Amino acid sequence: MAHVLVLNAGSSSLKFALFEEGDTPRALATGLVERIGGAARITVEGPADDPLVAADLPHTQAADHAGALGAALDAISEHFPDAKVVAVGHRVVHGGMDFSAPVVITEGILSRLADFKPFAPLHQPHNLAGIHAAMVAFPSAVQVACFDTAFHRDHPFVNDTFALPRAYYEKGVRRYGFHGLSYEYVSGALKDSAPKLHAGRVVIAHLGNGASMCGLKNGHSVASSMGFSALDGLPMGTRSGQLDPGVVLYMMEEEGLGPREIGTLLYTQSGLLGMSGISHDMRTLLASDDPRAREAIDYFCFRIRRELGGLAAALEGLDAVVFTGGIGENAAPIRQQICANLGWIGIDIDAARNTAGETVISTPTSRVRVLVLPTNEELVIARAALGLTKGGAPIA
Amino acid sequence: MAHVLVLNAGSSSLKFALFEEGDTPRALATGLVERIGGAARITVEGPADDPLVAADLPHTQAADHAGALGAALDAISEHFPDAKVVAVGHRVVHGGMDFSAPVVITEGILSRLADFKPFAPLHQPHNLAGIHAAMVAFPSAVQVACFDTAFHRDHPFVNDTFALPRAYYEKGVRRYGFHGLSYEYVSGALKDSAPKLHAGRVVIAHLGNGASMCGLKNGHSVASSMGFSALDGLPMGTRSGQLDPGVVLYMMEEEGLGPREIGTLLYTQSGLLGMSGISHDMRTLLASDDPRAREAIDYFCFRIRRELGGLAAALEGLDAVVFTGGIGENAAPIRQQICANLGWIGIDIDAARNTAGETVISTPTSRVRVLVLPTNEELVIARAALGLTKGGAPIA
Repeated sequence: MAHVLVLNAGSSSLKFALFEEGDTPRALATGLVERIGGAARITVEGPADDPLVAADLPHTQAADHAGALGAALDAISEHFPDAKVVAVGHRVVHGGMDFSAPVVITEGILSRLADFKPFAPLHQPHNLAGIHAAMVAFPSAVQVACFDTAFHRDHPFVNDTFALPRAYYEKGVRRYGFHGLSYEYVSGALKDSAPKLHAGRVVIAHLGNGASMCGLKNGHSVASSMGFSALDGLPMGTRSGQLDPGVVLYMMEEEGLGPREIGTLLYTQSGLLGMSGISHDMRTLLASDDPRAREAIDYFCFRIRRELGGLAAALEGLDAVVFTGGIGENAAPIRQQICANLGWIGIDIDAARNTAGETVISTPTSRVRVLVLPTNEELVIARAALGLTKGGAPIA
Repeated sequence: MAHVLVLNAGSSSLKFALFEEGDTPRALATGLVERIGGAARITVEGPADDPLVAADLPHTQAADHAGALGAALDAISEHFPDAKVVAVGHRVVHGGMDFSAPVVITEGILSRLADFKPFAPLHQPHNLAGIHAAMVAFPSAVQVACFDTAFHRDHPFVNDTFALPRAYYEKGVRRYGFHGLSYEYVSGALKDSAPKLHAGRVVIAHLGNGASMCGLKNGHSVASSMGFSALDGLPMGTRSGQLDPGVVLYMMEEEGLGPREIGTLLYTQSGLLGMSGISHDMRTLLASDDPRAREAIDYFCFRIRRELGGLAAALEGLDAVVFTGGIGENAAPIRQQICANLGWIGIDIDAARNTAGETVISTPTSRVRVLVLPTNEELVIARAALGLTKGGAPIA
């Protein structure tokens, strides 16, 4: 039986999952190495969230992504000694203008992916580091890149461009949109459970530590709340979301901040954390009675409502809203607050169903159906990697 | 009979108008000095747009705002020798956190207005230059500042803040919104002609060379498409409108641009001009058969529809849309294109009424009423200046 390893390398973390081949690939284990470069730690869980590994990493493995991958492979070898990894699927944040589907990684592809580093300087280099480490560890496996941008590459021009001099569009300053692997999974799940809704006008709200929304017509992305970078759109755990470009000019001119400092401020010190001064974690804010926590939550919910109105305009109407991601799947009070003020757009939420965690949380008479569907980005990657391993041309 | 002079000083222009006191102040003349600092030229028109003056300025008056004001006063003296200017009303772009109404200008007020220069570096210094010139020219007149931000100062917190560290909100990095004098006029005109609509949920689209949209409940602004600066929101003649802050970081880090260069790019080389590569002027684009002109128009109309959806979310519904400003009042094809895709929100536009330039351009059965109402910012300023001259405390 063949296996697929899924890797999602962040700036200081490496998420991984081991799948067994099958009509629907089956996850045998999911794991996380966090605080790479510092006091790194690994945790691995089995299919029923049963803990398999929880340990601090030795210094030799804690320093970089290659070490972290080594620790992940040690854990997998120990618990799944017979696993035969024929493919490694990588989550890659940016596929630039060209990649609208997963691709088998060759030296030529690797070089093109490196070209996109300026588009996602905080993410793309770590994704590539993960690929390099995996190529060393699995020299005979097929390496597959799956892009967060690919799902959105068919956006109409008005949802792909900014109103800048045309040369910026030509060189790739576009509204890419992200979280595409999650949208692909959730759109597929909606098609399975409610094909008529899937064929209509749907907004999926991927609400996690990163957050965005996607407008889909008949399963195809036509607009996203995110744009060129992973900063735009909704406020996130530590990211600002939508921001007047004049504020960035103010930070440069009046405060003398440079691009690194502003980047750190907007990516890591803003969002829910910056507004509340308390935490980036929605669970902490919901449990707090500090008014700043309440204000951060109110802003988060309000921006989602406002973006929903904008996406409905892009879709020319609305038939369904789907919540997913850590907050979207688990924070019933957030879903309630978002939907409570949306009667004008045809949403009537059923408070009891929402609290009970049902799949459909709108009332039977609500014109717009509201659902909660768990996402599974790793499965999308595993499927793509298996598909290209069988059908594609593996690297020599 | 007392008179009021209205001044609107831009970076290289000075708009002015002379009003005669009355229940509704009457405009005797409106004028423009353009290309201050260069080949300056003055034009003045009477109440029926009849040309009174059209001349190049001598070098002595062409150099700065004081010279331009001198030329304007010469023209007024010549045609209205008996005018007694008891008040000068100034359009001031930024009133910061505090000013939610017009104010009589004192030395103390002037100093506070100068504090807002970092918030509007391209506009506020010229507004203040106009005030200084008018104080010299009319030492005994009451000088009144009318703010583009004042109309929006009651925004709820979620429409006033960004998701930045709290200190930014405290020091005034907020969603101010602009074009408030226009919104005040149009809201008043709507109240006069359709008081029930005015009491409901209304979006006013001020579409000119500058462009923004405002959501009003019962005549009060609750949200704007513009934020901290005059850059955000809709694309404009030469301004970008909404932009991912990550694009500004890209310009800084990858292109090595500084704040002045990026400011010039976003304020003067973007928008309709940047997208089309042809013109900032909607009339030129509408007359062009270049596909880039069509794309710029499509983007402009699309962003207005998308913002309308977002503002409807902020208003929790929509009862009326009002078009105003140079494009909003005159470009029937633009109004048609914006409204053609808004059936989902209850808008059914009447193509014949729209082309004929009627006030109400929606069909009788359209759930949302769509109107065209000409704006008159100068009249708002004249009224405020007269009101404060009578009721307020003039400067010593």
